[in-house]
Amino acid sequence: MTSGTAARGRPRSADRTEAILTAVHELMREVGYDRIRMQDVADRAGTGLATIYRRWDTKEALVAETMRVHGLPDVEVVGDARADLRAMLVAIAEEMAGGSEVIAGLVTACRDHPEIRAAMQECMIDQARPVIGHYIAEIVGEGGPGVDLLVDAAAGVLLFRGAFLDEAVEPAAFADEFLALLDGLAARR
Amino acid sequence: MTSGTAARGRPRSADRTEAILTAVHELMREVGYDRIRMQDVADRAGTGLATIYRRWDTKEALVAETMRVHGLPDVEVVGDARADLRAMLVAIAEEMAGGSEVIAGLVTACRDHPEIRAAMQECMIDQARPVIGHYIAEIVGEGGPGVDLLVDAAAGVLLFRGAFLDEAVEPAAFADEFLALLDGLAARR
Repeated sequence: MTSGTAARGRPRSADRTEAILTAVHELMREVGYDRIRMQDVADRAGTGLATIYRRWDTKEALVAETMRVHGLPDVEVVGDARADLRAMLVAIAEEMAGGSEVIAGLVTACRDHPEIRAAMQECMIDQARPVIGHYIAEIVGEGGPGVDLLVDAAAGVLLFRGAFLDEAVEPAAFADEFLALLDGLAARR
Repeated sequence: MTSGTAARGRPRSADRTEAILTAVHELMREVGYDRIRMQDVADRAGTGLATIYRRWDTKEALVAETMRVHGLPDVEVVGDARADLRAMLVAIAEEMAGGSEVIAGLVTACRDHPEIRAAMQECMIDQARPVIGHYIAEIVGEGGPGVDLLVDAAAGVLLFRGAFLDEAVEPAAFADEFLALLDGLAARR
């Protein structure tokens, strides 16, 4: 009682939010949604379980917020559509490098938890389609085929190969393969 | 003991194979892999559990054989690449109409059971890529972008939208959307 607890204790919840969401994001890539334990999140974020549960009632709520915050990879934008799209594709492929282990967890989470499904949709519809779609439209030009289809195709190929095939998806090779498809569409202009 | 059991009994195992595999195929579309019960397969195929277990030791073995036999939808081939591809895409989209319920079961089964994963890969690599890839190559022409990428994109878009989005995939609209992409690639020749 002689010194203020606020000064000596752990940082308050708000300060740990970023560390907690980053920990969840890393664990989703490493072990998959269904194998994340709240204690592992707490350990990695250097916080206590109580701090986490004060802000998020359930694991689902925590994962949903992580997906909203870390929806698209954070890549440096250089202002060239091809380069920026390439960097984004490489980063997304790297996030899915865990293959079927990680993808099965994500697909099941979206099926079983409306909260996570809503966050996934927000991430894809409000973030991925506009951002990635903007780069694609720059490359293939206006009046090209549906940009939504191409965005969904990029995500879908990674999902499909990661979930079902044993061929490891090599991020740089995938990005080049996808850009070649866009070049084919651009050439007709 | 007065009459031959062979004449009065159920048809022998071999005769029920087609009915059993068809029943599994239908149930995979309707309830998803993980919710299939062997008793439901037996009931639908009009056979007994013993008949099924005499031939397939496990549910995994039965599902794997079903995937090999019913890998690609059985659609009428008219000899025109666009028409044949369109029919195939519509049929595949219909098979995945169960959305995330069915897809999550399939993805999880491929992760957890090497036998089912091998059958899925055989189906995709040995059947889908050559057959669908042949149609695509006919449409976009030789020297187009990787045909494997386009095959995987068709499957991937269905997987992605079915697993994550609530937008129901309308089979005919999806087929038209995908063919428009191929037309964009063909136009550059």
